[in-house]
Amino acid sequence: MDEVKVIEIKKSIFADNEQDANNLRKELKARGVYLLNLMSSPGSGKTTTLIQLINRIKGKIRVAVMEADIDSDVDAVKIKSATGIPSVQLHTGGMCHLDAEMTRQGLDNVNLEGADLVILENVGNLVCPAEFDTGAVRNAMILSVPEGHDKPLKYPLMFSVCDLVVINKTDVLPYFDFDIDKCREYVHMRNPKATIIPICAKTGEGVDALADWLLAEVKNWKQ
Amino acid sequence: MDEVKVIEIKKSIFADNEQDANNLRKELKARGVYLLNLMSSPGSGKTTTLIQLINRIKGKIRVAVMEADIDSDVDAVKIKSATGIPSVQLHTGGMCHLDAEMTRQGLDNVNLEGADLVILENVGNLVCPAEFDTGAVRNAMILSVPEGHDKPLKYPLMFSVCDLVVINKTDVLPYFDFDIDKCREYVHMRNPKATIIPICAKTGEGVDALADWLLAEVKNWKQ
Repeated sequence: MDEVKVIEIKKSIFADNEQDANNLRKELKARGVYLLNLMSSPGSGKTTTLIQLINRIKGKIRVAVMEADIDSDVDAVKIKSATGIPSVQLHTGGMCHLDAEMTRQGLDNVNLEGADLVILENVGNLVCPAEFDTGAVRNAMILSVPEGHDKPLKYPLMFSVCDLVVINKTDVLPYFDFDIDKCREYVHMRNPKATIIPICAKTGEGVDALADWLLAEVKNWKQ
Repeated sequence: MDEVKVIEIKKSIFADNEQDANNLRKELKARGVYLLNLMSSPGSGKTTTLIQLINRIKGKIRVAVMEADIDSDVDAVKIKSATGIPSVQLHTGGMCHLDAEMTRQGLDNVNLEGADLVILENVGNLVCPAEFDTGAVRNAMILSVPEGHDKPLKYPLMFSVCDLVVINKTDVLPYFDFDIDKCREYVHMRNPKATIIPICAKTGEGVDALADWLLAEVKNWKQ
């Protein structure tokens, strides 16, 4: 069966997370490893999106995944069995976010020699994870159609810190009052430079564009 | 236009939140005011549910609402214009939860003499709000169908502390892989005594049962 390594993450003792995150980024740059921090609400489709995405890029670059969760290892098991790539589960023990030191504890359990890209699936939460730099090269977030297009108004920091906003579950657009143009406008109000990619992780629609974005990012980072 | 009072909530200075919450509950009991703490993920439909619910009960009991949000006053304005009942907006200034003292800061701006029931719409977050007793008589949460039936596995504390779980957006059940029986099983794994009420806030289906539950609760509290 698909057994995954489960890491119990300890609370950080470092006071200066910003400095620590910058150090981690520098170390990853030196090793040629790109770290993506993926955030979202619970149930927006992070894991399904990752499976679609990884199956498109795993032949081109070497990928590893860290799945943060308060409890359970369902996500890491799902990723491993659906993509075959190495996946570790990080248990935060009730903590609502990951900072750079906690991310480092996870990375200590990833074979970085064998990875061009490590994706960190952060705890499902639109508030706290946005406050902590994990040391990732980029922050990405998934907003799903059922959550509503007004979320950038209500969770300003999350949308300010994200370089990429993926709009997921576009297949159910006909059943929800979700205005995708308004959503773009609100996202760009928070971060004018944010890239926005609409997808449907269930059917795979739009995931090629997401894969292209990420492959270009990783290539650029490794130069 | 519908103007609402916006309260900037300050960080609490009390060390013992549990004690403070118990004190607040006792004070509310003495004044005959029932406080409901409503939690959920972002976009699960808290505000729409409240509008449907309040329009069913406002002729029977006196209701007031406190809308907690990191930023913006869209929810309080929406509640006030759709139901006509008094609504204040609590700004948490980035904080991811409310504790008893912060709830008290909000209650100081509600006319408690004119209220049998105060509903606190907590910050949209399945993690942090579950950790803090607000002083409410009951905790309720909304899980919407698009979020998936596995959420009680992944956010154990939230489902452990909730007396009522509302399953919202049942109208889109045909479009999602949501197993309502599995959901019931997982909820009861976390809290065997939890009441579960499926509704569709958009169409109003099931909201009568929710109104009945709440009216009985308030009646019982005021005895």
